[in-house]
Amino acid sequence: MILTVTLNAALDITYQVDTLHPGHTHRVQDVHTRPGGKGINVADVLTQLGEPVRATGLAGPEINLPDFVPINHPTRRTTTILTPDGTATLFNEPGPRISTGEWATFLDHYDTLTPHATVVVLSGSLPPGIPTDAYAHLITRTDTPVILDTDGDPLRHGLNARPALIKPNQHELERLLGHTPHLPHDCRELGVPVAATLGADGAVLSTPDGCWTVRPPHPVTGNPTGAGDAFTAALARGLTHRKPWPHILADAAALSAAAVAAPHAGAYHPDLYRELTNLVDVKEG
Amino acid sequence: MILTVTLNAALDITYQVDTLHPGHTHRVQDVHTRPGGKGINVADVLTQLGEPVRATGLAGPEINLPDFVPINHPTRRTTTILTPDGTATLFNEPGPRISTGEWATFLDHYDTLTPHATVVVLSGSLPPGIPTDAYAHLITRTDTPVILDTDGDPLRHGLNARPALIKPNQHELERLLGHTPHLPHDCRELGVPVAATLGADGAVLSTPDGCWTVRPPHPVTGNPTGAGDAFTAALARGLTHRKPWPHILADAAALSAAAVAAPHAGAYHPDLYRELTNLVDVKEG
Repeated sequence: MILTVTLNAALDITYQVDTLHPGHTHRVQDVHTRPGGKGINVADVLTQLGEPVRATGLAGPEINLPDFVPINHPTRRTTTILTPDGTATLFNEPGPRISTGEWATFLDHYDTLTPHATVVVLSGSLPPGIPTDAYAHLITRTDTPVILDTDGDPLRHGLNARPALIKPNQHELERLLGHTPHLPHDCRELGVPVAATLGADGAVLSTPDGCWTVRPPHPVTGNPTGAGDAFTAALARGLTHRKPWPHILADAAALSAAAVAAPHAGAYHPDLYRELTNLVDVKEG
Repeated sequence: MILTVTLNAALDITYQVDTLHPGHTHRVQDVHTRPGGKGINVADVLTQLGEPVRATGLAGPEINLPDFVPINHPTRRTTTILTPDGTATLFNEPGPRISTGEWATFLDHYDTLTPHATVVVLSGSLPPGIPTDAYAHLITRTDTPVILDTDGDPLRHGLNARPALIKPNQHELERLLGHTPHLPHDCRELGVPVAATLGADGAVLSTPDGCWTVRPPHPVTGNPTGAGDAFTAALARGLTHRKPWPHILADAAALSAAAVAAPHAGAYHPDLYRELTNLVDVKEG
């Protein structure tokens, strides 16, 4: 099975309203609530793909997932206001402070899960109270290949522990390098395989075995939240089944575009995924 | 003690943000969460006044108040986005459906509390699953004087059960009468004492013993959410201590204006309350 880790889980609340009128009261009829956070999204996409997966992490009592370690504070909320034209307005609460005891309990639980995992996926930001080098520590704690999808200092520290693959987007890559990325050249300098998503420009995969680029076959409109997590899900499945790199990149591009057409993060549009799988075009170099 | 009833309780969430940018992501640093709903606000104001009070009602597990009857669904959320210029943008979820068993459990609990109450306050809307004449039923179930603060059909039905006092605002009064109110004349026609709040125009109290009007001494800027509940709290305290009607009206006007200056519903600004108490001017007729 694939193991996903979400240390800064959220309760994702989506309100569909006709219009967003600042200064007014909106009676929300369409409320959608789900456990959120990047690793949970990755796990949900893998479940929809039929891939064995377990999702662990830290969460308050609102999120009742079997492999999560409970914490003593409410789970942070992320509230999205969606209007019919597809405009999404987000309000993200800060994460609760994790105690030393909660972090130690998580590490023990992590150690019981990783021996059964083919790939470990570490996703998202770190909540207050967790050391900045937490992802580096989780990588060194296991022999299982790790995909790291985070930002800033947690990504910088994590790189030193040599994950099997990192998945930055363009902004995260720019912050990591300290300048506008020159692709795929700059990726090679990072010393580990890099799958970089570039939004409408597609994606780049840079590995010791070669470099590949992919462009989306046609634009997909919808909700881009969670598209990067679908991309990561495809990477984890590809590594698990030891698929060739260009195959993994093509699959990730098709799956993330099909996730844009799904109404919520953690899902993809299956017909569009099948259609795009035959259309994406991977180029070497 | 005064007993307040909140059948459609809420989890009030307030986000303070610098600006509200539709289509953007807001990192919210200032999050304030409290049990909400009109009867809970009334009880909180009475507690701040030092008046013995108990708050009952129906609520999900997020609201842990000792006299509430637990229901099997999450509590509805009301989310307020506040910007520094005082603009409030609200998103109100619909209430959860109450089961027949939950309603029956509440009625049993209500019957154990009302014999100890000097005044019962019934506040706010009814959640789905509760009969429209629920407030009328709660009024006839007890010999304790009842203040009713609701709207539409629950108010219309409630009037038939002859509460001790109703507290509509201008819009609620207009919906009840079916036309723009002529005050205090129209209030007399309703057959029960009426304390009508008129926003910046003050308030009117119409009883069989006479009619009184009050105007706010000076405008107060702030958060008007909960000002009506502070007004109701003063009415409940006045009835409990058998104060004369003009005294009750003056106190309610001062307390509700002092509630506007408090940052959240369920509280008032104590210095402003003392200052306004000496300034409000009640006129007969």
